[in-house]
Amino acid sequence: MADTLADLAAQLRIDSIRCTTAAGSGHPSSSMSAADILAVLFQKYLRFDFQQPKAPHNDRFVLSKGHACPVLYSAFKAAGAIDDKELLTLRQFGSRLEGHPNPHVLPLVDVATGSLGQGLAIGVGMALTARLDQLPFRTYVMMGDSETAEGSVWEAFDKAGHYKLDNLCALIDMNRLGQSTQTELGWNAEAYLARARAFGWHAVAVDGHDLGAIDRAFAEAQGKKGQPTCLVFKTEKGHGYSLIANKDGWHGKPLPEDKAKEAIQELGGLRDVRIQVKKPEAKKPSGQDAAAPLKLPTYEVGQKEATRKAYGDALLALGNARPDVVALDAEVSNSTYSQEFKKAHPQRYFEMYIAEQNMVSTAVGMAVLGKRAFVSTFAAFLSRAYDQIRMAAISNATVHLCGSHAGVSIGEDGPSQMALEDLAMMRAVGGSTVVYPSDANQTAKLLAQLVERKGITYLRSTREKTPVLYPASEEFPIGGSKVLRQSDQDVATVVAAGITLHEALKAYELLKQDGVLVRVIDLYSVKPVDVKTLRKAAREAQGRLVVVEDHWAEGGLGDAVLEAFTGEREQLPTVVRLAVKKLPGSGKPAELLSAAGIDAEHIVDSVTSLVEDSPLDTEGREKPEEGTWGHTNA
Amino acid sequence: MADTLADLAAQLRIDSIRCTTAAGSGHPSSSMSAADILAVLFQKYLRFDFQQPKAPHNDRFVLSKGHACPVLYSAFKAAGAIDDKELLTLRQFGSRLEGHPNPHVLPLVDVATGSLGQGLAIGVGMALTARLDQLPFRTYVMMGDSETAEGSVWEAFDKAGHYKLDNLCALIDMNRLGQSTQTELGWNAEAYLARARAFGWHAVAVDGHDLGAIDRAFAEAQGKKGQPTCLVFKTEKGHGYSLIANKDGWHGKPLPEDKAKEAIQELGGLRDVRIQVKKPEAKKPSGQDAAAPLKLPTYEVGQKEATRKAYGDALLALGNARPDVVALDAEVSNSTYSQEFKKAHPQRYFEMYIAEQNMVSTAVGMAVLGKRAFVSTFAAFLSRAYDQIRMAAISNATVHLCGSHAGVSIGEDGPSQMALEDLAMMRAVGGSTVVYPSDANQTAKLLAQLVERKGITYLRSTREKTPVLYPASEEFPIGGSKVLRQSDQDVATVVAAGITLHEALKAYELLKQDGVLVRVIDLYSVKPVDVKTLRKAAREAQGRLVVVEDHWAEGGLGDAVLEAFTGEREQLPTVVRLAVKKLPGSGKPAELLSAAGIDAEHIVDSVTSLVEDSPLDTEGREKPEEGTWGHTNA
Repeated sequence: MADTLADLAAQLRIDSIRCTTAAGSGHPSSSMSAADILAVLFQKYLRFDFQQPKAPHNDRFVLSKGHACPVLYSAFKAAGAIDDKELLTLRQFGSRLEGHPNPHVLPLVDVATGSLGQGLAIGVGMALTARLDQLPFRTYVMMGDSETAEGSVWEAFDKAGHYKLDNLCALIDMNRLGQSTQTELGWNAEAYLARARAFGWHAVAVDGHDLGAIDRAFAEAQGKKGQPTCLVFKTEKGHGYSLIANKDGWHGKPLPEDKAKEAIQELGGLRDVRIQVKKPEAKKPSGQDAAAPLKLPTYEVGQKEATRKAYGDALLALGNARPDVVALDAEVSNSTYSQEFKKAHPQRYFEMYIAEQNMVSTAVGMAVLGKRAFVSTFAAFLSRAYDQIRMAAISNATVHLCGSHAGVSIGEDGPSQMALEDLAMMRAVGGSTVVYPSDANQTAKLLAQLVERKGITYLRSTREKTPVLYPASEEFPIGGSKVLRQSDQDVATVVAAGITLHEALKAYELLKQDGVLVRVIDLYSVKPVDVKTLRKAAREAQGRLVVVEDHWAEGGLGDAVLEAFTGEREQLPTVVRLAVKKLPGSGKPAELLSAAGIDAEHIVDSVTSLVEDSPLDTEGREKPEEGTWGHTNA
Repeated sequence: MADTLADLAAQLRIDSIRCTTAAGSGHPSSSMSAADILAVLFQKYLRFDFQQPKAPHNDRFVLSKGHACPVLYSAFKAAGAIDDKELLTLRQFGSRLEGHPNPHVLPLVDVATGSLGQGLAIGVGMALTARLDQLPFRTYVMMGDSETAEGSVWEAFDKAGHYKLDNLCALIDMNRLGQSTQTELGWNAEAYLARARAFGWHAVAVDGHDLGAIDRAFAEAQGKKGQPTCLVFKTEKGHGYSLIANKDGWHGKPLPEDKAKEAIQELGGLRDVRIQVKKPEAKKPSGQDAAAPLKLPTYEVGQKEATRKAYGDALLALGNARPDVVALDAEVSNSTYSQEFKKAHPQRYFEMYIAEQNMVSTAVGMAVLGKRAFVSTFAAFLSRAYDQIRMAAISNATVHLCGSHAGVSIGEDGPSQMALEDLAMMRAVGGSTVVYPSDANQTAKLLAQLVERKGITYLRSTREKTPVLYPASEEFPIGGSKVLRQSDQDVATVVAAGITLHEALKAYELLKQDGVLVRVIDLYSVKPVDVKTLRKAAREAQGRLVVVEDHWAEGGLGDAVLEAFTGEREQLPTVVRLAVKKLPGSGKPAELLSAAGIDAEHIVDSVTSLVEDSPLDTEGREKPEEGTWGHTNA
């Protein structure tokens, strides 16, 4: 066995060199440090059916140090999952073998990696899924040493330790060298061990180029109960080729052809080692709740309810109906109301404590294994996990996000708790869906659609109780909108969503008293946006739109409305955007809506000014200068 | 002394209760757990001149658990910095005492807190500043126990340990109870100690309600050399009032008036303890480089250079000219070219390793103490620190961000490394400035303006070398743009910036060959945007605009251009947006620009189709459906 393993490890190095030299870019040295570890794992420990990469009983392997994908692709080749010709297409346009692993094109990997420090958190999600589904598979996550500087890694260490995930094994490829300099800890294995142990892990130092030692370490990890295991492998970057081994200045550099030849010779020359990765025992998930018909909560028109509460109620309903629904929250389940689900389905609720990055990545790990994961916290704090959300989209994962307490209307807690950028952030996620309901029935109906939807979905909920506007029978297709007020005498259209819709309706009444009729559109679907209805309103209501939103002026509802008038032969309408333009402070919700210029009174003023064709630029005049961007209290 | 301290601590509790009860919201219980610690700190250890809160020799205190601000405001009152009347305005509209500390209105605090887990990283920046300026002040950061679940906290522990910041002291208020449930570690002080020690800290467990023990612990921390000290205080949430002490269900809840009265009685009744916080010895920063005239780098027109390299050159020039300039990078200084500064000014360069959250917050800590902090990494990875950037704006901090390797034009590394949402993210930051230069001279000129600018500034740089377009003498005012091609026969305007400007110029030549003249605008200032020039172009070039950007269609250049046509009475244009709409893969830059539909050829097609008034919607047709949002390789 040892001979085959050594041969295999040499081949993984050689193939990593060959494909990066062919590509003219990539990371051979980071691949070579990990080759011995991967050889032992694939040959002896991993249980994986390459014919059915998505089978639920497969072990999972996550290459968190995604830039080392040449060694992973080389292992896939040794396992017969790809051929040599494809290996040599690395990084070419149209190849499945991208510069970092991407499941959009390569189903052999579960997730996209390449933004460092996210793999272990994804592994936590996979290991929790194994436990939930009573499946014996193990999850292995290979990290670089540099990436352990990311706090997200310690969030994952913390959660894995907390949940005692003994089906999870972290592999640290401690090759000492980062991109531009030595890592903080160099080869100080003891420091890594102390950190892992302090977070509740079993941790072992291993010579990462001693095949026997690696083998024994994996066996030890497999046998360890009640704790996850972290193997800290001391390795050399570029190990196997003396010119670059353990030398600075070789990060992310392919070998020139002559050096590649020399390296291959030093590594014993080309070979064709094939390995038979063992298949796992076929097993189906068990212990699941039974499916049931969906019974959404309903609310009486006129009743006051917060959309965040409706989110909780609807999430519970989805959970009752579908056994694949899981919920994660960052220790604010009593604010987001995911606690309704938690109470009813404690085994499918995962307390992620105040660690939003890990929460999102853990949800990704669950999602790619088939769960419908709902993730909730204050909308402002989802900004903490924006990179994880971005990467979740690249991972082709379906994750349902809910951000509560959006906008200035939360009141007294002040700006640190007010999401004013979440719509901008979520719109700019590839393939995302963004909705912003204004009442409880709408929230429930939207959530029931989101669960069927692919990709990253985002629902923005509101802290304050607001009157229910729609009967429970109403439908709210994603991509649609509701025209709540209209006539053939409309002089303008007010577009709003969520909390500001209620202000728009008040403004309608005030304007009507003065004989001014406006159209009012509830733009609950922010992305995709209802192009047709918006264009129709512009045509029919004198080409004037006032968009009002509890969000910064950039990237939110206003920009979504403008988007509807692009790529068109007809002209853009006149659009006035009422949005938050100065830093809000603390105060009562009504005070803050007024100070931000987004309440009924300001809508009335804006419509009046627009209709009177005042010479003032109703948007421009409230815009503060740089540096003095101001504060509503100042 | 002990009596005064006990009296003071009781008063801090009483005042925390009084002001939250008056406000009808807030966090008395979280304040009460911390009262004894704050009493000892303010009475005996803190050196702070309340007459000059910004004096460079003052100790710094950061309340990372910002929701406990009632106890901080109460300490300010005891110190005579605010009066009782103001204390009772807590959380009211217009009050300086917001629900979480906010330096926009209250200069007694240096930074905004309230998004948990950011205070220690800010403290790292302050402690590094003290060292750089050879000032003896100490930095104290009080954290909640719940927030230690945030990875950003461990990034900060790591950096403080790495840099052996013995002038930094972390205080953990281990009151066991979070918002909705017990913390992960409860009262397990040993677990906190082990974690802190594993990250290189001196760590001590302390009874947080024993004034003598607290006093001894602060003395020990002050005496500790070569290591930062972490004091883990075992406390009770709500300590001092038996009804709520150590009881669940009292997070973020003010006491009703009758209970407040009862609590005050149990705490010994109202009193008026005044303390004299000791002033530090006056001292000026020393060891600084001398200022020198700014000599920006210059480049020849036609020469090829990457804007990321020009960033590095210009940063070096700023560093040579101004001793207050510091640079931080997340271990990619050889990619962002901040290495030019690092080589010349190693003492003002701070290697933050791969920990973007900590990097941004550390920069905030330096910035609020007067440094001009430049922060660089791949633009994609700034998304990791979006919450920190958001909070930096609320902190009124001036931080200069540079994101390199933006867009699909980076090529082979693939989508995980490509920022496609950074413009959206940065536009939606309150008071921000966003620029995106297309050549090296422009980059240098913009950077020289950014250093004079307040608030969050963002410069997007490009990986690829591009030809220098402008002579070194050209000026590029922020808020302006450059009209590079124009005639009185222009049939449309192409708006571009950065990498796509070069495609726009190629498209111009191709169109010109066919006798089609277009205007070409370099929109290097994305926020604020040049409304005047865009409107003029629309008026003069037949009301047709094609905006082309290497960014998702949402929130970037296209939305910035549309913004210029809001709030307007005059005729509005037709806008077509060419942007990234499918997930890119790996490939050569030119292949990826083409696949994304944002190269010269696609610009030509778009202009042609627009001018020919084709019935096709040139924007809409490339938009993928949900779920199947696609991949350029698929």
